[in-house]
Amino acid sequence: MYRSHTCGELRASHINKEVTLAGWVQKSRDKGFVIWVDVRDRYGVTQLIFDEDRTPKELLEKAKTLGREFVIQATGTVIERASKNSKMETGAVEVLVTQLEILNQAKLPPFTIEDETDGGEDIRMKYRYLDIRRNPVKESLIFRHKVAMEVRKYLSDQEFIEVETPYLIKSTPEGARDFVVPSRMNEGQFYALPQSPQTFKQLLMVGGMDKYFQIVKCFRDEDLRADRQPEFTQIDCEMAFVEQDDILNVFEGLTRHLLKEIKDVEVAMFPRMLYDDAMRIYGNDKPDIRFGMEFGELNKVAQHKEFKVFNDAELVVGIAVPGGASYTRKEIDKLIDWVRRPQVGALGMIYVKCNEDGSFKSSVDKFYDQEDLAKWAEITGAKAGDLICVLSGETNKVRAQLSALRMELAERLGLRDPKVFAPLWILDFPLLELDEETGHYHAMHHPFTSPKSGQLELLETAPGEVKANAYDLVLNGNEIGGGSIRIHDKEMQATMLKHLGFTEEDAKAQFGFLMDAFEYGAPPHGGLAFGLDRLVAILGGQETIRDFIAFPKNNSGRDVMIDAPAAIDATQLKELSIKLDMDA
Amino acid sequence: MYRSHTCGELRASHINKEVTLAGWVQKSRDKGFVIWVDVRDRYGVTQLIFDEDRTPKELLEKAKTLGREFVIQATGTVIERASKNSKMETGAVEVLVTQLEILNQAKLPPFTIEDETDGGEDIRMKYRYLDIRRNPVKESLIFRHKVAMEVRKYLSDQEFIEVETPYLIKSTPEGARDFVVPSRMNEGQFYALPQSPQTFKQLLMVGGMDKYFQIVKCFRDEDLRADRQPEFTQIDCEMAFVEQDDILNVFEGLTRHLLKEIKDVEVAMFPRMLYDDAMRIYGNDKPDIRFGMEFGELNKVAQHKEFKVFNDAELVVGIAVPGGASYTRKEIDKLIDWVRRPQVGALGMIYVKCNEDGSFKSSVDKFYDQEDLAKWAEITGAKAGDLICVLSGETNKVRAQLSALRMELAERLGLRDPKVFAPLWILDFPLLELDEETGHYHAMHHPFTSPKSGQLELLETAPGEVKANAYDLVLNGNEIGGGSIRIHDKEMQATMLKHLGFTEEDAKAQFGFLMDAFEYGAPPHGGLAFGLDRLVAILGGQETIRDFIAFPKNNSGRDVMIDAPAAIDATQLKELSIKLDMDA
Repeated sequence: MYRSHTCGELRASHINKEVTLAGWVQKSRDKGFVIWVDVRDRYGVTQLIFDEDRTPKELLEKAKTLGREFVIQATGTVIERASKNSKMETGAVEVLVTQLEILNQAKLPPFTIEDETDGGEDIRMKYRYLDIRRNPVKESLIFRHKVAMEVRKYLSDQEFIEVETPYLIKSTPEGARDFVVPSRMNEGQFYALPQSPQTFKQLLMVGGMDKYFQIVKCFRDEDLRADRQPEFTQIDCEMAFVEQDDILNVFEGLTRHLLKEIKDVEVAMFPRMLYDDAMRIYGNDKPDIRFGMEFGELNKVAQHKEFKVFNDAELVVGIAVPGGASYTRKEIDKLIDWVRRPQVGALGMIYVKCNEDGSFKSSVDKFYDQEDLAKWAEITGAKAGDLICVLSGETNKVRAQLSALRMELAERLGLRDPKVFAPLWILDFPLLELDEETGHYHAMHHPFTSPKSGQLELLETAPGEVKANAYDLVLNGNEIGGGSIRIHDKEMQATMLKHLGFTEEDAKAQFGFLMDAFEYGAPPHGGLAFGLDRLVAILGGQETIRDFIAFPKNNSGRDVMIDAPAAIDATQLKELSIKLDMDA
Repeated sequence: MYRSHTCGELRASHINKEVTLAGWVQKSRDKGFVIWVDVRDRYGVTQLIFDEDRTPKELLEKAKTLGREFVIQATGTVIERASKNSKMETGAVEVLVTQLEILNQAKLPPFTIEDETDGGEDIRMKYRYLDIRRNPVKESLIFRHKVAMEVRKYLSDQEFIEVETPYLIKSTPEGARDFVVPSRMNEGQFYALPQSPQTFKQLLMVGGMDKYFQIVKCFRDEDLRADRQPEFTQIDCEMAFVEQDDILNVFEGLTRHLLKEIKDVEVAMFPRMLYDDAMRIYGNDKPDIRFGMEFGELNKVAQHKEFKVFNDAELVVGIAVPGGASYTRKEIDKLIDWVRRPQVGALGMIYVKCNEDGSFKSSVDKFYDQEDLAKWAEITGAKAGDLICVLSGETNKVRAQLSALRMELAERLGLRDPKVFAPLWILDFPLLELDEETGHYHAMHHPFTSPKSGQLELLETAPGEVKANAYDLVLNGNEIGGGSIRIHDKEMQATMLKHLGFTEEDAKAQFGFLMDAFEYGAPPHGGLAFGLDRLVAILGGQETIRDFIAFPKNNSGRDVMIDAPAAIDATQLKELSIKLDMDA
């Protein structure tokens, strides 16, 4: 061992002890007659001291050669520090060095290894191993480990078994694109990397392994939006002989346990809300309920006058912005510009100032009197001093627009406190989703989700209205997980695949093994999956997941540190029976 | 929840309780007036009873329709069993059923779901989900989970951090073949799946994360020998600021912990043996030391007579087979045939019977007298009643042959007791290995392994003699893990890659990021990896790993259950900018 103690360990109680430390030079201050060197490892920083009186000249000279990030080993005596540093855990002491080894030299790093660095995103990604030396990244990775360990302990204690499912599986065109892997031994054939272990966990249920979990990498070859990774980690779970409530209870218990153990936050029963209600009240299936600003639907009280914009709208809906009555005309104009941005897409915004004296001032005073506006205030819950923002149009669109505005305003008003945790179950998601481009319905969750009991017949007549036994767990406005009760009957699964546009042949080719399995005694089952990257980031009070991933890829799916992907040898291609087919 | 209790839970203390069970019909016995149905879940089996006296007729009729592996839910009263079954944990009671639901029917399974099944390997692989219902497979998967949890707990308690390294990395032609993944977003480029997280864990050390571990899938596109899988799981570890002994101590501690926690076996300090000694004493770098039969080298006492075979041999070496003097001529001839098989490859075998009266009878009495043979007995440790088997020839070959014979005899003699655990460290492996085909040396462990101090200069003059800071942990004749102290100096790494035949350009293209990292303050570091599949199998007292993997692939790398790999769509190929290049 190169050290007797870590750099985070020494205290006043160690004074007069001989110790050996090893680590990186954080910084050194050379006053000529005395040199202080801060040495850092994973556990902390300790100050070394060399001085003319007590240090041999040769050693003092050696200390002068130390540069930032040199790797050193120093032996010496722990002494009391003349001027203690109460901000450092080791700040009561320093080490008077008697032996110094330079274990490795270091070039000047391309950015400072400090909590606040001068390095931009790109350079930090390229030198990720240096970025990991910085406390915020290092602590994020350690935090992730702790969360994963707690998940495993909790689920193991509840008799869940972690089972490793295969990574080399079969491609299914359904859903997102697969990454594929050419098979050398099976010419012209490909494996696919799993988008999730979905079918395998269902087969484990058929196999009687009635409580399964796995923390597992999954892969999706998507065009990457910001903060998406081609490989990501799921906490994947499945249970047999359970109903929806049993699953919600177990994973609510897990989440509550994590909040308690990791954040020391106690949360009571998680509220449960129907999907339809979430859309009506928040315009969003993953509402942030750390704050109010609930939607008030105004059709009844806004479509009786001559204001054509509202009269033609499918939905007129508003929110009350706390304290917004004090916004200047300019500020409100900026807000209107904000909702008109293409990313939001509203055509305009009507507003009502709720004055402190109880009167109202709106941008549609021409059409609506004080009595009308008082009703709007009542429905949106606006109080004196608030601003009511009203959007109108096609229901789905206007809900999305107002939801975006609600989140933006909450952000500006500081209502999204990262120290507050507001979990929420959303239940009864639609089974199917209309693809506006193709006019086809596809599975909102996945093709194995069961419709709510008694709704199967609706599939023929009103497919968009069928609700599923599907649920999401939302935390602070982020979906951290979702799942469903699965179909466990071969006939129903066949019907579902038919409705999703699979020919009988395709269904058999892709999911034949699952439907076969359903014939040999499949139990009722269901499950869910949490996104670990996101969960960890939210528990860590962050919005972006990248710092919680040791070696993330950039938005083009590249690892810029190792420079992957890359070209491969012609012989490799030949062995795999493939060749490149590049556009000219 | 479909059940109030599991099928393994009910005891005499539950008598008169109303319970609901759910599970699979293991078997039913219909005596006409009474029907017993054994219902099984993951936790055990419970007997249900329906009879004419107490069961409504309709329910009795329904019970008669139950087939093997039907999924049922039964509610009833726990009653005392007339004839108790002490072999069943629930054998004191049965459930008098009052309600029966058939949750799912089942076709007759293609093999019996019993501890001893009539299903062959192929059919069990195809219906793996049914095989998992069988106790031996189910228990193996649960056992694997327990081992993995204990590993995680132990290493976490020692401040190791589990860090997830990426699966989509870069291909390196060194070592085994990579599986590659075409990148859609980076035309003509490929990711590779990791053969191990080797370079990433070294970068984590450069990043200051000084105790890393990960239980992680790795991938090798090899022609599969029996009991190898294209994807396999490693317990991967790395530490910084340590020497070889520190690493051995930590992972010896882990292994000892597993043996104690999982098998309730206490093992003292693991013996440590040099590679050269292991080869000399056991002819093998992973000797099974549960039994003796150590090699005795006989050159000095066998090359002084007229026996040309021995005189021409580089090595003459024998082992003593306990009790082998009683073998008949026919048995010994069979043994000679066995060593002559092409898989072993010896040209012949000389034997000496050590008679109970102290005399010797050998197949070379023509050349050697009793005094000679007494010396052989002394050197091989043969006692009266033993048989000495002697092989001769080229050192490496004859050691391998005698090692094979030693293992075979131990197997036949019942000396390889799966309940005994004999771990052993092998140290100081050669750094390089000669490829007999190409005449080139390649890294025996991998190109990042450091040579033993002071041996670097030997690289030029006698590359085969350079020893490495490399070690294996052997358990009962199986290598369960290995590792090394790594190079952490850029110059030494460059020298090593040069000696392994890398051009400077290739070295930079493939490992440039690692050598760059070594310039920014790389600490001394090293680590090791255990093969989890093998470790679990050995701890479970088994020789084959397949039952400890939920969904294994066959020897052609196929998953016969889901039928992967498979052809993919033309559009998928097009998007990936590749096309098939099949032989005509």
